[in-house]
Amino acid sequence: MFGDRLDAVRATVPLVHCITNYVTVHDVANVLIACGGSPIMSDEPRDVVDITSICGALDINIGTLNSRSIEAMALASARAEELGHPIVLDPVGAGASQLRTSTAARLLEQRRIACVRGNMSEIKALGMGASTTRGVDAAPGDAVTYDNLDEMCAFVRRFSAACSSIVAVSGAIDLVSDAQRTYVVSNGHRMMADITGSGCMLTAVVGAYLAANPGEPLEAVAAAFAMFGLAGKLAAERAIEEGAGNATFSNYLIDEVYKMDAATLDRGAIYELR
Amino acid sequence: MFGDRLDAVRATVPLVHCITNYVTVHDVANVLIACGGSPIMSDEPRDVVDITSICGALDINIGTLNSRSIEAMALASARAEELGHPIVLDPVGAGASQLRTSTAARLLEQRRIACVRGNMSEIKALGMGASTTRGVDAAPGDAVTYDNLDEMCAFVRRFSAACSSIVAVSGAIDLVSDAQRTYVVSNGHRMMADITGSGCMLTAVVGAYLAANPGEPLEAVAAAFAMFGLAGKLAAERAIEEGAGNATFSNYLIDEVYKMDAATLDRGAIYELR
Amino acid sequence: MFGDRLDAVRATVPLVHCITNYVTVHDVANVLIACGGSPIMSDEPRDVVDITSICGALDINIGTLNSRSIEAMALASARAEELGHPIVLDPVGAGASQLRTSTAARLLEQRRIACVRGNMSEIKALGMGASTTRGVDAAPGDAVTYDNLDEMCAFVRRFSAACSSIVAVSGAIDLVSDAQRTYVVSNGHRMMADITGSGCMLTAVVGAYLAANPGEPLEAVAAAFAMFGLAGKLAAERAIEEGAGNATFSNYLIDEVYKMDAATLDRGAIYELR
Repeated sequence: MFGDRLDAVRATVPLVHCITNYVTVHDVANVLIACGGSPIMSDEPRDVVDITSICGALDINIGTLNSRSIEAMALASARAEELGHPIVLDPVGAGASQLRTSTAARLLEQRRIACVRGNMSEIKALGMGASTTRGVDAAPGDAVTYDNLDEMCAFVRRFSAACSSIVAVSGAIDLVSDAQRTYVVSNGHRMMADITGSGCMLTAVVGAYLAANPGEPLEAVAAAFAMFGLAGKLAAERAIEEGAGNATFSNYLIDEVYKMDAATLDRGAIYELR
Repeated sequence: MFGDRLDAVRATVPLVHCITNYVTVHDVANVLIACGGSPIMSDEPRDVVDITSICGALDINIGTLNSRSIEAMALASARAEELGHPIVLDPVGAGASQLRTSTAARLLEQRRIACVRGNMSEIKALGMGASTTRGVDAAPGDAVTYDNLDEMCAFVRRFSAACSSIVAVSGAIDLVSDAQRTYVVSNGHRMMADITGSGCMLTAVVGAYLAANPGEPLEAVAAAFAMFGLAGKLAAERAIEEGAGNATFSNYLIDEVYKMDAATLDRGAIYELR
Repeated sequence: MFGDRLDAVRATVPLVHCITNYVTVHDVANVLIACGGSPIMSDEPRDVVDITSICGALDINIGTLNSRSIEAMALASARAEELGHPIVLDPVGAGASQLRTSTAARLLEQRRIACVRGNMSEIKALGMGASTTRGVDAAPGDAVTYDNLDEMCAFVRRFSAACSSIVAVSGAIDLVSDAQRTYVVSNGHRMMADITGSGCMLTAVVGAYLAANPGEPLEAVAAAFAMFGLAGKLAAERAIEEGAGNATFSNYLIDEVYKMDAATLDRGAIYELR
């Protein structure tokens, strides 16, 4: 069950090397600690091979990429692949610029990416060459709903097969697929779209879950999604009750990840497996 | 009225491209969401033209500028000007170093800047070649007071005419001038000087207000100032009541922006038009 | 007493130039304001000499170093040394990569560093060539305990003599030594290990304390440690009482630094001088 995946993270404290954007990096670091992992950030080409070597997973996030970090991503991902470490890719803003789309597509093509985690617009930009991305948010027309669920599941299954990675799409309804099976996860809360960084945080948490659960990658990713969504719901309830806004909610979200345990997760996870 | 300016932002959700410093970037992103806009950060020369093209405004903040971001500012601002997007400039630390002063002055000279927003020391460094800046804070002697208000208003009017931009100076008393008319805004709270990023956040919010209110730039900037100052006052009252410090206040400030509506703004805005 | 060191900071508002990592930089800025100082960040080689010249101390933190910031560290530290400003060094992740270890070691060798502040694994990597660093956290086996206190004190004394700097090691028990005398400080709380940035914040605060207390560097550093540890304890008590997690605790920590006064510090500081 998902609770066991959570316990494995807390038991092993996986070190996650993050090459990530400078907008949400602080939350990424704190949420990695909160979920039971340990973060280390490095994006200098001369530093990343050493750093990735002592870690258990590599998180590549293209949110504020530049020439130096692109080179660092290439070197670190090559080393992680050599060592068999899971690599998670967050294609922030794929579809919004040529550089973002091509950088993410190249990594997905050239490296063994364990999981690509994005919103549906970003995933479509990579999987269909579509370009409906509205900045770093999903375009409204790309939302997964109960009406288009079959079609959306079929798309992520196909894309997962094509790129040989777990494809994990977050939104009001999350889809997590390894081409054979697809988890449809319905935890979460609409306030998660009102802060910067919920996607970035989730991708880093996925990295920790994959590192700690080497035998069950699909369950690890789905557990990370359910755990994070549940934390979001608990945080939103608390924020709304107190009349708080999005900044306080953002802190509460990390707080709830910090407080989450296996029993709460197993009780609260809402999903079906297709 | 200012409330209409706020409603226009919430109705249109303007995308704001930020080339900004890495100190306060997270708060800038969250406050843009809070005020009704949507942020996207990019400072890589190969990325910024695409990104600025899909946005409605460009926010240039020189708080931690470097060779790469200076090049990105040049490219993005040229593209924004071509597209008629409002450009807002935050000359963080102008007067504190040669590079900061000259970078801000060059942008102001070469580009059509819709609004330059700084503290009085930064604005004086640009408008008078004065160099009283104390790091990134205004020098005490530069404070706008009711005693020197006429003189200060005259200075911002003259500087606005000279640079063909709205000049917006924040402090205990804010001045927002388009050379013809000057708003004197007296919202705000002294705790806003006890956090990093209140200026950076306000500049980004100004970008969103300008993008959403193309016909009335002066009112848009003044409304952003009144809204942000009012949020600061509400946040400070709450922080002080709870015995909280500056970190909690910083979150409450964004929270209050998130919760602000047109009626509250129209009721709470304190300003005169000269 | 330590309270006088605190009052000196609040009375003089020292400007601290930070060349620091982008993970925790926002907290570093806010904690500098909270403790009574003022932050300015700059890591561009063409900017740092001007910026360091107007400041009272230089904080060098290698948490996310890159080629540009390494060059900036060299230029800024040369200028700070020329001006007699205290330089504090935070060797984040020394021992975890060749680049980090060698960059920190070179600065320590070539510049007059007033204080090097790290966890015991980082300090051992510099002082003994050991490499037990677990990412950016201390290895469990490196913890200072009452059982190995004599031995650990002897090591920091020897290392302090060897590098002619105050050596300041944070952990459950902190050690602050100038080769002659060693403060053993026992404030703090275990939750401080559950957030990113407690070390980075403390190093910056040490910079402000050194700038404001030029005649008594060892007491200044020890006072900063006791003050920060005490703030951590007060913050943790509040967080635990409210059932909060690590993100809220992180804000409360800065809040408590903001609220700290000399009397509270003198009453709460727990230390012995060896």
